[in-house]
Amino acid sequence: MVLGAAESPVLSFDVGGTDIKAGLVDAKGVVLGMRRVPTPLDPARPGEAVVERLVELAMELAAEFPATPAKAAGIIVPGIVDSMAGIGVYSANLGWRNFPFTAEAEKRLGIPVAFDHDVRSAAAVEHALGGSKEFSEVVVMVVGTGIAAAVFSGGKAVTAGGFAGELGHAQVPDPDAGPRSTAATILEAVGSAGGIAKRYQRASGTPVPGAREVLALAASGDSTAQRIWAEAVDALAFTICQCVNIIGTEAVVIGGGLAEAGDELLDPLRARVDQILDFQRRPRLIRAQLGQDAGLLGAALNARALLGAGQ
Amino acid sequence: MVLGAAESPVLSFDVGGTDIKAGLVDAKGVVLGMRRVPTPLDPARPGEAVVERLVELAMELAAEFPATPAKAAGIIVPGIVDSMAGIGVYSANLGWRNFPFTAEAEKRLGIPVAFDHDVRSAAAVEHALGGSKEFSEVVVMVVGTGIAAAVFSGGKAVTAGGFAGELGHAQVPDPDAGPRSTAATILEAVGSAGGIAKRYQRASGTPVPGAREVLALAASGDSTAQRIWAEAVDALAFTICQCVNIIGTEAVVIGGGLAEAGDELLDPLRARVDQILDFQRRPRLIRAQLGQDAGLLGAALNARALLGAGQ
Repeated sequence: MVLGAAESPVLSFDVGGTDIKAGLVDAKGVVLGMRRVPTPLDPARPGEAVVERLVELAMELAAEFPATPAKAAGIIVPGIVDSMAGIGVYSANLGWRNFPFTAEAEKRLGIPVAFDHDVRSAAAVEHALGGSKEFSEVVVMVVGTGIAAAVFSGGKAVTAGGFAGELGHAQVPDPDAGPRSTAATILEAVGSAGGIAKRYQRASGTPVPGAREVLALAASGDSTAQRIWAEAVDALAFTICQCVNIIGTEAVVIGGGLAEAGDELLDPLRARVDQILDFQRRPRLIRAQLGQDAGLLGAALNARALLGAGQ
Repeated sequence: MVLGAAESPVLSFDVGGTDIKAGLVDAKGVVLGMRRVPTPLDPARPGEAVVERLVELAMELAAEFPATPAKAAGIIVPGIVDSMAGIGVYSANLGWRNFPFTAEAEKRLGIPVAFDHDVRSAAAVEHALGGSKEFSEVVVMVVGTGIAAAVFSGGKAVTAGGFAGELGHAQVPDPDAGPRSTAATILEAVGSAGGIAKRYQRASGTPVPGAREVLALAASGDSTAQRIWAEAVDALAFTICQCVNIIGTEAVVIGGGLAEAGDELLDPLRARVDQILDFQRRPRLIRAQLGQDAGLLGAALNARALLGAGQ
């Protein structure tokens, strides 16, 4: 099993923009005592406030499972993460800049801490266990309100000090631009679930709760919804083809809310990618298999790596 | 010295679309007996014809330098190259598909052969000796008639079975498109020296020998030349920013004919990249330092790696 043969559970924390998920994860990848609490937002000390909440959660879990104390902890967060240095470089939503998560958490928890990026960690589990495991050149995209991604090259995560995988901020041709045709926007604005809902609302004047409803409207013949959906597919295909040309990507795993559309997303996306590419290898487009717990499993995998094979 | 301490020279062949460059390269990186012959073009047996020419060149060099027989050879070629398998997967200009260069050349030369991609090999030398050596996330672009590139991640070349670094074929917004603004073309068509000359000619009706003349016309106030040059800069900046967002590129080394424009290219390119990027790190844009021999040195470096440290 990918999580190793070690018997002791590890503490696992998935810090998101809204919630923190926490639990003990055993050697088989089973999550014990899973809980979800709101992420504390303290503009004055955003990193410290999060670590304090993690310490509280660790104490609750230790009290609930006194027989199996955790020997390591994994923490994952969004934004730009320098995992080697143990630093949360930047999070637009959560507010920290250069906060030393590993050092602070190790001091407070008293056990070794593995600190890493949320999507990269979840993607590593998805890549190890999911449909892309046979490939070494892989991009895992999480397409939800925004777009985050993890890039693998030669079977290893490309980190670049936390700056790789910013696919949501990569430029795409802007479908709303006027006749000056080289105008560009970013992928997130056109191809994310959030972007689709916003663009539909702007174009039609009709509010929609999300991309799911835009897809349903498109299926029922709404031509504005059809255009917005097609433009999202175009933008996603554009960025996927950039990955193919720059780093020879063989497989793209798509998760997040938009992936729930399944083949209604993947089929036109495959067709568009095929149309754009020339002599290049066609990447396999694969729907993510792991669900909401991929982050917790990823953080646990990172923590377990600290313990080595014998623990 | 990067080429290692070994005393014996290695045979080095840089097979280009027009010429083959050949020579013996000693342990200090000095090229002996350098010669240049036309690349044989035989549509029926394109790979075999090239290997036969290399064998002739090897015999000439052995006769010229009888005291120091080569113990290994390096061969570099353009196109899609699977260096691990020793196969020239595809070359549009030279015509082969899946030709087993390493096996054929070893059989005919009787010494170990290192087979690799021309630009990746030259780029490895450029990266090791040039202005990007302090960085681990690097793209080396050769911008001439076409555009080829080598991508480094974590200090290592990204190969992806030969499919990485196809920056010339990455999509960019099409400045010639009409009002449907998401139309795209490829970087090579707009940002290469060849593309600049062709687009100027098409727009002005005046033939020009190359991009150099378009730049001179732009400097003298020709507004068509100014527009074509600015669109080339935009397209190059667009692709550079894709690299930054996808793999966190820290430094871009630009070589080839267009790089001879120096700061007339690099200054507006830096400004445009800075304008496109948001929170991302700004990549250093660096002019390539090595000249025409970078390919031969790269092939020699590959060959020397076969011999190990002690040879």
